[in-house]
Amino acid sequence: MSSATRLDADSRREQLLQAGLTLLRTTPFDQLSAVDVARAAGVSKGLVFHYFPTTRELHVALLRASTTELLGLVDLSPELDYEGRLAAGLDAFITYIEDAPLVYVAMTRGAGSDPQLQAVFEDTRNAIVALILDVLGLAEDPPAGLRIMLRGWIAMVEEATLHWLPDKVVPRQRLIDFLVTAALTMLPDALALDEP
Amino acid sequence: MSSATRLDADSRREQLLQAGLTLLRTTPFDQLSAVDVARAAGVSKGLVFHYFPTTRELHVALLRASTTELLGLVDLSPELDYEGRLAAGLDAFITYIEDAPLVYVAMTRGAGSDPQLQAVFEDTRNAIVALILDVLGLAEDPPAGLRIMLRGWIAMVEEATLHWLPDKVVPRQRLIDFLVTAALTMLPDALALDEP
Repeated sequence: MSSATRLDADSRREQLLQAGLTLLRTTPFDQLSAVDVARAAGVSKGLVFHYFPTTRELHVALLRASTTELLGLVDLSPELDYEGRLAAGLDAFITYIEDAPLVYVAMTRGAGSDPQLQAVFEDTRNAIVALILDVLGLAEDPPAGLRIMLRGWIAMVEEATLHWLPDKVVPRQRLIDFLVTAALTMLPDALALDEP
Repeated sequence: MSSATRLDADSRREQLLQAGLTLLRTTPFDQLSAVDVARAAGVSKGLVFHYFPTTRELHVALLRASTTELLGLVDLSPELDYEGRLAAGLDAFITYIEDAPLVYVAMTRGAGSDPQLQAVFEDTRNAIVALILDVLGLAEDPPAGLRIMLRGWIAMVEEATLHWLPDKVVPRQRLIDFLVTAALTMLPDALALDEP
């Protein structure tokens, strides 16, 4: 038995996903195939198909893996006040996009009309909203207007970061401060959206 | 000669694009074929292929047509002050998304890794930024930070609108006011992003 087959099922699946995530740094999401993953992981194509019977299942699993990674990174610093936690989470979020912009773009814009891929995107956005609501102490029964604002703010962070990225003319910390200030400034207005 | 073949080339192309745009209101972008367009326009598949030799060319032309439509709608009310023009343009933008959310989502999230489709998306966003810069009297040599903020703000408007749309819990005008206020509040901070 070669070393390539000695891993247990979970480790093997994880290894294939990590190989796929690495490939996504340079390969557009919709062009990534099981063959590419097999080659990168040094295993047979059949083994990849064993874990991910279709390319779509592979894609969905890769998106899930990348969002899990993202969420693990942005949820931090519970010892800080909410402004500090927001800034720390945003910093990690921007680092994630900086580190692998293609993976991020695949995650947010690669879904097309595929309901499963769209669901991953929605789940990710909603998980980040839930995280921020928790930071703000508003996780229980959040007002509709606040949810709308937070979804909008996350989209703004994403778009601003992707546009800042190529030449970074604006200093990084200044961008972070700007985006945190924007969120905090909009917050009272967003809460007022639900007033009767 | 049937009435279906009597149109001149430009009118015929326009007719096919209009048929395609109507279909996009109910059909996901990446599932729309030349056959669908031919059937909807009451012409042969061959005629559609004559104007759009590949499905991709059809898709690119449809996206261009929908963004031209959008840009024509949001550029208005030159007699108003900049706050009023921003609000009027935003109102039109939201109406456009409300009217055909699937077309809008196709335009903004359907590009995948296709460079031509991505270019349409970029061109559209940049055209809206240019429009706002013009409204603000900053069209010449706009600061980098302001461009980043405006791209971010447009993404926020889009995401907030798409999330407001299904149940419209927040009154429409209140959402518009909120988004205009957000832009105006961020503006001085965005201009400061470029300070030395």
